[in-house]
Amino acid sequence: MSSTTKLTPKGAATRARIVEAAADHILAHGVGGTSLDDIRAGTATSKSQLFHYFPGGKTDLVAAIASFQSERVLEAQRPFLDTLDTWEAWEGWRKAVVAHYGSQAHWGCPIGALASELIASDPAVSDEVAAYMDRWRGYLQAGVTRMQAAGLLRADAVPETLALSIFAALHGGLLLTQTMQSIEPLEAALEGAMAALHAWQAPTRPSLSEVGSESLA
Amino acid sequence: MSSTTKLTPKGAATRARIVEAAADHILAHGVGGTSLDDIRAGTATSKSQLFHYFPGGKTDLVAAIASFQSERVLEAQRPFLDTLDTWEAWEGWRKAVVAHYGSQAHWGCPIGALASELIASDPAVSDEVAAYMDRWRGYLQAGVTRMQAAGLLRADAVPETLALSIFAALHGGLLLTQTMQSIEPLEAALEGAMAALHAWQAPTRPSLSEVGSESLA
Repeated sequence: MSSTTKLTPKGAATRARIVEAAADHILAHGVGGTSLDDIRAGTATSKSQLFHYFPGGKTDLVAAIASFQSERVLEAQRPFLDTLDTWEAWEGWRKAVVAHYGSQAHWGCPIGALASELIASDPAVSDEVAAYMDRWRGYLQAGVTRMQAAGLLRADAVPETLALSIFAALHGGLLLTQTMQSIEPLEAALEGAMAALHAWQAPTRPSLSEVGSESLA
Repeated sequence: MSSTTKLTPKGAATRARIVEAAADHILAHGVGGTSLDDIRAGTATSKSQLFHYFPGGKTDLVAAIASFQSERVLEAQRPFLDTLDTWEAWEGWRKAVVAHYGSQAHWGCPIGALASELIASDPAVSDEVAAYMDRWRGYLQAGVTRMQAAGLLRADAVPETLALSIFAALHGGLLLTQTMQSIEPLEAALEGAMAALHAWQAPTRPSLSEVGSESLA
């Protein structure tokens, strides 16, 4: 966001419009298949305008797109992502993730598509992606920690490991939506992840299953 | 394997040696960073030899590498992958997968690395990868089906969905080993996948947890 701090509200809106249009073009054609001329044509922007908003050219623009896509993905998981302190919130989160990726024009992860093309060659994009992944995983881990603090998960559950397994399931499911051209793998992956979380449910709610409670006796 | 059927045993061994060396080079440098000259130099092979074994040039060679890496990955999961009809077999499989990917020179999936670079442009590689993914997932699904037939999993478990969730967890964990440069996400992902499988355990073994058994009553 640092490069937008000096823009007027109108300038920021124009910049955002360019980023959004460029993001869609890159999703459809890849980074290699997208030139600055394509983006100028698609957004009715002049060359000088483009360099005003993205002084570093394509590199700057792609980093801005990574940031934009990250916000869009995280935004689609709100308000659930900020709390995740009840089973209902996790269920809401799961549905929001499936709905978001199911409604996209392309299967798979829009950040992953950028990342796999550029992560080796472009440190700015690579850093942006790593920070975003850490942030996302951090939300899940905070949620698992809150569940444990609220007594909903067993005291011997390890929030870091559980969050990592949920995060991995999500990304594997997302990867397979691309291979299989279907939402099913993401649905199955997140159902599995939720079952794995429930396996650590604290034995204080007799109406639900008491997984492994005997090992605490 | 069809293109090797006319080779002598010695010829097949030479071809295999070229594929293995080329696979390692491509893992380290990417498809784009690997020329046929690199492979000739690395394997002490003449140009005519290379075209004898791979008439289609680099495209043929890369498809052969995808096939070779696929066999290597599946081989590392044997003998577990062929049966998976007990909890012990699944546990053995889980450990074999972690050990295999933990011992590789590069984090992440060697097929995925090829696939993400070539899947759009090279139908031969794309078909090879899709067939391999289906085969691998098929082994897991056959295992879950056997567990159910043996009465180890509940009758209302859906083998296709369970296998898909385990497969997704594995690939997500593998993807994150690359982002995080650690085996931890794969370990966490497979622990989660096994917990999700155990959630469907049939209530016939009182010494283990009886997940959701009340819903059968």
